[in-house]
Amino acid sequence: MITITAFAWVPPFARGQVRDLRVRWALEEAGLAYKVRLLEPGEGDKPEYRALQPFGQVPIFVEDDVVLFETGAIVLHIGERSEALLPKEAKARARATQWLIAALNSVEPFVMNVVAIDVFYADQEWAKLRRPSAEAFVRHRLASLSKALGDKPYLDGDRFTAGDLMMSTVLRILRHTDIVTSDQRLAAYVERCTARAAFHRALDAQLGDFRQAA
Amino acid sequence: MITITAFAWVPPFARGQVRDLRVRWALEEAGLAYKVRLLEPGEGDKPEYRALQPFGQVPIFVEDDVVLFETGAIVLHIGERSEALLPKEAKARARATQWLIAALNSVEPFVMNVVAIDVFYADQEWAKLRRPSAEAFVRHRLASLSKALGDKPYLDGDRFTAGDLMMSTVLRILRHTDIVTSDQRLAAYVERCTARAAFHRALDAQLGDFRQAA
Repeated sequence: MITITAFAWVPPFARGQVRDLRVRWALEEAGLAYKVRLLEPGEGDKPEYRALQPFGQVPIFVEDDVVLFETGAIVLHIGERSEALLPKEAKARARATQWLIAALNSVEPFVMNVVAIDVFYADQEWAKLRRPSAEAFVRHRLASLSKALGDKPYLDGDRFTAGDLMMSTVLRILRHTDIVTSDQRLAAYVERCTARAAFHRALDAQLGDFRQAA
Repeated sequence: MITITAFAWVPPFARGQVRDLRVRWALEEAGLAYKVRLLEPGEGDKPEYRALQPFGQVPIFVEDDVVLFETGAIVLHIGERSEALLPKEAKARARATQWLIAALNSVEPFVMNVVAIDVFYADQEWAKLRRPSAEAFVRHRLASLSKALGDKPYLDGDRFTAGDLMMSTVLRILRHTDIVTSDQRLAAYVERCTARAAFHRALDAQLGDFRQAA
């Protein structure tokens, strides 16, 4: 049986965004059942948990003697068991991995710079001064992404992959702004990805766990 | 034959840091020969190149009909052909991937926040106000990484993997500061990784291409 960790409590703005959502979604796409171990506040900082997740974050993935952290790696690991996430054909598989890592390394850091300002540092002087250029950078990066997507339904063409799972969850983080919604192609892309039944089951499960733990 | 792209010119601070270094290093570890296509200033913005690399960056990897961008994905792709980068055993392989993605998503974004301040925004008011907290965040994150490394030579134990290749190149970006060097374990780790002959061949090749193009 697969077990993942998630937080028992997060502030309202983070509900529906915490990264275990990505792993839950991948598990739903792959049709794999899983259990959730909810971490109480502070538990992520305990030495026993840090031994499994050096940064105290969620999720970790545990199945028999496999213990993994880092959402991107967990999604790739699940993807090896499901063509719904990673095509079997080597070239298409490499491109799906390419888009997954593009989401994590070429898009998310700049998205998070804006989100960190809005959520954690909004009242700080540096954040007020920095926000316009941080937003401009993300808009520029997303304009390039939008061009790469073009008229295709998904980043690599007609088929949803783990790359789309990751990219759409990264773009969703900006839902408190118009940065994504003002680009019709990207807005429709996020809608398309998150309309999937597996996404809804994953989101409901995360939100349900917060309600249950409350 | 494998071809990668690199920039013909970058400012001095970026020489020995541009990301094609990571791919050159992986190719050297794997013992795969490659050619380099040097991009002239502005070439990364041309539509023909953007069709291959949406963000105009280097490197891309081309071999027959395989065309990939995103350094992390290229290193994983090369790793599939070399146990020097990715162990064949499935669990060890998943853990190597985990550390590679940890480098790209849990460490590099915070490293780059400090580096961007120092290199691109040093004279801006927000950057001066922001730097202490950005540095404190990286130090905290790297203290966790150092603890996870512990007394092991490499992140997953006795064996160098693609995860160490990626993590050590991320940590090297801070060489203009004492943030890594003040942690003896991490400093020794970066030394250990970059003492490898394959790293030196990769670094010499990148620096040599800058000299040749000058």
